[in-house]
Amino acid sequence: MSPTTSKSAPHPLDPLMVDEVRAASQTLVKQLQCATTEVRFKVIDLAEPPKDLTLQHLHHSGPAPDRKARVYYHLKTSQTLLIAIVNITKSRIERTYGAPESQGPVDWVEFELINRACTSHPEVLAEVAKLKLPPNARIENDPWAFGTDNAKEKRRLFQCYMYVAMSEDGEANHYSIPLPLAPIFDAHTLELVDLQKLPMGTNDILDAETQPWEPAEPVEYSANIMGEDAFRKDLKPLQITQPEGPSFNIFGRRVEWQKWSFQLGWTLREGPVLHDVRYDGRPLFYRVSMSEMTVPYGDPRSPYHRKQAFDLGDSGFGLTSNSLSLGCDCLGHIAYFSGVRVSGDGEPVVMPNVICMHEVDDGIGWKHTNFRNSKSSVVRNRQLVVQCTATVANYEYILAFVLDQAANLHIDVRATGIVSTMPIRQGLQVPWGTVVAPGVLAVNHQHLFCLRVDPCLDGDQKNTITYDDCIPVTNEPDLDPFGCAFRVQTTPIKKPGGYDLDLTKNRVYKIINESRINSVSGKPHGYKLHAVPSQMLMMGPQTFNYKRGIFTSKPIWVTKYRDDELWASGEFTNQSRDDTGIAIWSERDEPVENEDVVLWHSFGLTHVTRPEDFPVMPVEKISVSLKPVNFFELNPSNDVPRSSQNLNKSTLYKVGPETCCAARPSRI
Amino acid sequence: MSPTTSKSAPHPLDPLMVDEVRAASQTLVKQLQCATTEVRFKVIDLAEPPKDLTLQHLHHSGPAPDRKARVYYHLKTSQTLLIAIVNITKSRIERTYGAPESQGPVDWVEFELINRACTSHPEVLAEVAKLKLPPNARIENDPWAFGTDNAKEKRRLFQCYMYVAMSEDGEANHYSIPLPLAPIFDAHTLELVDLQKLPMGTNDILDAETQPWEPAEPVEYSANIMGEDAFRKDLKPLQITQPEGPSFNIFGRRVEWQKWSFQLGWTLREGPVLHDVRYDGRPLFYRVSMSEMTVPYGDPRSPYHRKQAFDLGDSGFGLTSNSLSLGCDCLGHIAYFSGVRVSGDGEPVVMPNVICMHEVDDGIGWKHTNFRNSKSSVVRNRQLVVQCTATVANYEYILAFVLDQAANLHIDVRATGIVSTMPIRQGLQVPWGTVVAPGVLAVNHQHLFCLRVDPCLDGDQKNTITYDDCIPVTNEPDLDPFGCAFRVQTTPIKKPGGYDLDLTKNRVYKIINESRINSVSGKPHGYKLHAVPSQMLMMGPQTFNYKRGIFTSKPIWVTKYRDDELWASGEFTNQSRDDTGIAIWSERDEPVENEDVVLWHSFGLTHVTRPEDFPVMPVEKISVSLKPVNFFELNPSNDVPRSSQNLNKSTLYKVGPETCCAARPSRI
Repeated sequence: MSPTTSKSAPHPLDPLMVDEVRAASQTLVKQLQCATTEVRFKVIDLAEPPKDLTLQHLHHSGPAPDRKARVYYHLKTSQTLLIAIVNITKSRIERTYGAPESQGPVDWVEFELINRACTSHPEVLAEVAKLKLPPNARIENDPWAFGTDNAKEKRRLFQCYMYVAMSEDGEANHYSIPLPLAPIFDAHTLELVDLQKLPMGTNDILDAETQPWEPAEPVEYSANIMGEDAFRKDLKPLQITQPEGPSFNIFGRRVEWQKWSFQLGWTLREGPVLHDVRYDGRPLFYRVSMSEMTVPYGDPRSPYHRKQAFDLGDSGFGLTSNSLSLGCDCLGHIAYFSGVRVSGDGEPVVMPNVICMHEVDDGIGWKHTNFRNSKSSVVRNRQLVVQCTATVANYEYILAFVLDQAANLHIDVRATGIVSTMPIRQGLQVPWGTVVAPGVLAVNHQHLFCLRVDPCLDGDQKNTITYDDCIPVTNEPDLDPFGCAFRVQTTPIKKPGGYDLDLTKNRVYKIINESRINSVSGKPHGYKLHAVPSQMLMMGPQTFNYKRGIFTSKPIWVTKYRDDELWASGEFTNQSRDDTGIAIWSERDEPVENEDVVLWHSFGLTHVTRPEDFPVMPVEKISVSLKPVNFFELNPSNDVPRSSQNLNKSTLYKVGPETCCAARPSRI
Repeated sequence: MSPTTSKSAPHPLDPLMVDEVRAASQTLVKQLQCATTEVRFKVIDLAEPPKDLTLQHLHHSGPAPDRKARVYYHLKTSQTLLIAIVNITKSRIERTYGAPESQGPVDWVEFELINRACTSHPEVLAEVAKLKLPPNARIENDPWAFGTDNAKEKRRLFQCYMYVAMSEDGEANHYSIPLPLAPIFDAHTLELVDLQKLPMGTNDILDAETQPWEPAEPVEYSANIMGEDAFRKDLKPLQITQPEGPSFNIFGRRVEWQKWSFQLGWTLREGPVLHDVRYDGRPLFYRVSMSEMTVPYGDPRSPYHRKQAFDLGDSGFGLTSNSLSLGCDCLGHIAYFSGVRVSGDGEPVVMPNVICMHEVDDGIGWKHTNFRNSKSSVVRNRQLVVQCTATVANYEYILAFVLDQAANLHIDVRATGIVSTMPIRQGLQVPWGTVVAPGVLAVNHQHLFCLRVDPCLDGDQKNTITYDDCIPVTNEPDLDPFGCAFRVQTTPIKKPGGYDLDLTKNRVYKIINESRINSVSGKPHGYKLHAVPSQMLMMGPQTFNYKRGIFTSKPIWVTKYRDDELWASGEFTNQSRDDTGIAIWSERDEPVENEDVVLWHSFGLTHVTRPEDFPVMPVEKISVSLKPVNFFELNPSNDVPRSSQNLNKSTLYKVGPETCCAARPSRI
C-alpha cells in the first residue's frame, strides 16, 4: 500500500499521505511569506487529532477532525528549531513556535552534510594520514547524536565515529576496523569543533600522537567477500504456501484478521502504531505503540560517557525503517505498507514497504487428548505479524506487533545488527566491554524500551490499572491447616507514577473496566500485561542518563491521558538535559482510577557483549504480551477450526530400513 | 523410528528396545523363580550406564557398557514396591531391593482398576444417585495421586475426582461438570477408604446430604458437539513445503542438523532427553533433560490441600506422551520416534510416535542493512524442534528442545489442556480460584519445572558455574566522572546449593570451562543460561509441598555430578514426605568449581485461572535458553546462506486498486 491521494477521506489517525505532506510544506512556506529555499524541513508527520473529536467522529457521527501536520523546520538564517502545527484541511498554520533550548531529531540532510564535512576536512585527513592505512582502506563515518555531558551546551553537535572498510564491496564491514579518531562537528556551521581521539585501553594518554594502525583482518558478513565456500551447504529450502491466500483483509489502512481489526498507523518517530484495536468488534486499545528506546553505554572513558542514543526520539523507528523486500524478511503471502517523509526542501518522499504484514504458524495453540480413547483436538497458533526493521546506523531493531487467535497481542522486539564498536589496542582488555575481533571493543550497554498502551476496554475511556499479587496465607491455621493456600490480592492504582514489578509475588498488572463484569467469573473485564522483568537503568539519579529518560527507572508507569503525550522521554530527546515526558506527566496529582488512563511498560536488556555477537548479532528476542483476563466467557480460540492433515499437508519423513520396523501389537 | 531389535549394538544411552524390555522382564521372572502371573510390572526403563564407562566407550574405544534396565514391580502377594536393576547384556539381576516407605509412580494397570472399582462401587453409586443426574449423564473419573498430608500414611491411595459427560461423544468435556464427590480408594486392595465430599463454597458443611445437581450447560470443545456453524470460517490454510526435504539426518537415534548433533534419548519418566550434544563436533552437554515438575494447588479446603502433582515422578512425561499424528502437531517434514513401555505382565508395549521432530522458520535470525546503500543481509532463523505432548489426565504439557543455527539450545514448555476443575455452587465465588463456567471452579496453582543440564563444554568434564552481575561503578569520580560506568562482576560457585537470580543486577548464570580461553575475547569458553525469572513455591518450609520438592524454593541449583542423580525431587515422589533429590545432593560438602558439575534451573508460572482458559487453555509458553558466550570466535550463524526470494518463494499480496499506486519519484 502506498501513501497517495485518496478519493475517500482518510481515517483521522491514518498517516499523512504524499499530497498532505506537500500541502503542509507549501502552506507553511506560503504563510511564512518566504521563499522555499529559505526553509529547511526536518520532519512532517501527522499531528493526531484530539481523542474526544476522534471518538465523536468514529462512534457518534461527529465531523471528521481536520487533518493536521506537525512540522519541524529551520529557517536557514537561524539555528533555532521551529515547530509548526499546520491545518491541512483548512490550509493554514495553527501555531508556530520556536524551541531554542531543544534540538530536533537527526535528519538525513544534516547527516549527509556532516558526513561530507568530516571526511573532507583537512585536519581530519591529516590525522587519518598518521594511521598509515593501506591503500585499499576506505573511510566510513557514522555521525552520532552527541549525547549530553554539559547542561550549558547549546550547539547542535555530532560526534563522528570513523571506521575503515577494506573492500569496495557495499557490505564490507567497516565496524570491524574502528579508528581512534572521533571529530566533533557543529551541524549548523559544519565547523570542526574538536578532533577528539579515542582511548585505546585503560590508561591512555589521550593527547599522544596518533599511532599507525595495527593491521587486523576485518570480520566480514558480506556474502560476496566471504565467498561461496564459506557457507554451510546443508540448509534445505523451507517455503510457506497459502493456496487460498492469506486470512487477512485490508481496507485502506484498516486491517481485519481472525476477529481482530485495527487501523494501521505509522509515524516517522515510532514506526508502526496500532489504533482502534478491536477483537470481535469489541474495542480493546485506542493506541498501542513503542514510545521510546534508549541505549546508554557503560564505558566512562571520554567520549564514550556521552553515548546514549534515544533511537526513537533522536532518529525515529519510522525514519530509519528499511524498505523491505519480498522473501527476505517474511515467508508466505506478504502485504506491504509504505510511508512518507519530507525532503529538506519540502517535497514528499515515499518510503516504500516500511511495514510488512503476514501470517505465521507458531506451533500448537491449544491441545487436549482424552487419554481414555486417545481422541485429540489440536488448534494451531496462527498469528498475524505486523513488522518493521529500523536500521539506526550500526544496529537493527525488528519491531513486531503479533496478534493471535486467543485474543493475545504480543509486542516483539528483536535486537540484531552490528554492535557499536570502538578501537582497542590488540592484546588489551578493558572492564567496559568485550573484545569481539582483533582491535575491536564492543562496549556493554543497556537497551531500555518503553511501550505505551492506551486502553479503551469495551469502548469505555474509563479504565483502571491494577496489580494482582499472589500472597500465601499465613497464620490462619483454622482456614489453612496445611499451609498451602494463597490469595490473589488486587491493588488499584490511584495515583500517576512509577510502579514496580515483584516476582516474589507474581505481580501482574492489569487494565480493567470496573463497570463491565464477566458473567461467568463475576470479575471485571480486563487485559493483563505479561511484562518483561528487566534490569532497569544502572545509572543513578544524578546522571544525565537518568535525567534524560526517567522511564528507565521503573518498569511500570501510569499516567492520566492527555492529547499529545505520546513519547516517554518527551518530544525532544536529542542532546536533552531533562525528560519532559513521563517525568512530568507522572508527577501530576490527578486521579487515574476509573479514568482515561495510559499504561507504560519499560523493559529491556543489558547487553554484555560476546564475540558471538560479531560481525552481525544473532537476534536477541524480547516479547511483551497483552492477554485477556475475564474479558471473554471462554477460550476465544475455541472456535478455531481444528488442525488436520487434510489442511496442513505435512510430509512423513521416511527413515532408512535399518531403523524402521512395524510396531509390534500393543497390550496393557 | 520404532524401538525394535537392532542388528548393530545400541548407543549406551539409547532407550531400551522392545526386545530388551522383554529380556529384562523375562530375566527378572526367571531369576525370581516365580510364575509370570505372580509379578506385576510397573516400569521398565533404561538404567543408564555410569558416565565414566560411557565416555571411555564413546571417546576412548572402551568396551560398550552393559545394557541394563531399571524395573519397578510388585509381587502380587505384597504391597511393597520392588526395584530391580537387570543386566540385559548378561541376563541377570544385578540388584533387587524393596522400598517399603515409598510409592512407585502411577501405572495404567492400577489406574484402570481403580477407575472401575470407583464407578461400580455401590456406595459411590448410591451417593451419585442423590445427585439426580439426567439420564444422558455419563460418569467419568480421574483417579489422582493422593498427595500428602500425613507422614504416617502407608497405604497407596488414590482420590477419584468424578465428573459427568453429557454426550456419548468421545471428546465430551466432562471437566465442565465436576461432581461434589471424591471417593478415596486403596490401589492395592481396591477398597473404598473414604467417600469424601467436596466443598461447594466457602462455608460448606461437609457432612450435609449430597444435594441434587444444579443443571448447567457444559462448555464443550468437541468439534462434533459444537457443530460446523460454531467455527470461524475465515482461516485459510497455511502449509510448509520443503522441496528438497528436511535439513536433518538421522542415524539410529543420532540426529545431525546444521552442525548440531545429539543422541535422542527417551525415558518413561522424562520423555525426550538429549545426550552427547555437540555443535560443529565440539561437545557441549552430556545430558539435558526436564527433570521434574510439580503443581501445587492453592486451595486449603480438604481434600484440595493435598493436590500436588509431580507430573514426572508420579506419572511420567514419557508414559503419558501422546502418539502424535501427521499434520496436527507440526507442519512440514516430520520425523517420529517411538517409545516402549512394559505391560503389567512384562510384555513390551510400543508407544508409536511419542516424539516428533521437524524444522521451523522462526523469522529473522539476523539482519543488517548498510544505510548508505540499502544493501541488506538477512539470515532466517531456522530451528529444529524435538517435541512431545504429555497428557497428564486433564492437562497437557508440550515439551520441546529447540536448536537454532546460532548454537542456541532452547527448552520450551507450552502448558495447555484443561485446567483441573472442581464443583462450586452456582453464584458463589471463593478466594482460591476463578469460576470458569457455571458451577465450575478452577483453583489457582503453580507449575514449577526443574531443568537439568549436565555440561561438558569442549569435552571436558571439569566445568564451573559462575554468575555475572552488572554492577554500576559508584564513588569513583576520577574514573567515572559522569556516573555512567558499570562493571561485570563474575562469581564462581564453589559449593553445591541453591542460588538466587537477581534482576536488579541482571544476574546471568554461566557454565564455563576455565581451561579453554577464547582467542578473540580472552575469556573462558562458556554457555549462559537465559533463565525464566519466576515466583518460587509460595508454600513455606513447614509444608509438605515444600518438603517434597526443595527444588521449588530456589531458581538455581548446583550439584556435583554423581551417576543416577537425575530427578530433582528424588526417585519416588508419589505420596512422598521428603525430597530425596536436590535436598540431599545440594547439602553435600564437596567442591563444584572446575569439577564435573550439574546445573539445575527451577522455573514456572503461577496460574491465576481465567474463563479464557476454559474449556481448553490457550498455550502459555515458557522458554529457557542456553546460549554460547565466548565459546565461538564469531557469530556461529555467520555462515548460514542468506535469505533470498529465490529460495523462499514468498508471494506478494496485491491490494485493491483504490489503495495502490505507483510510488512517486523520491528525493532527499
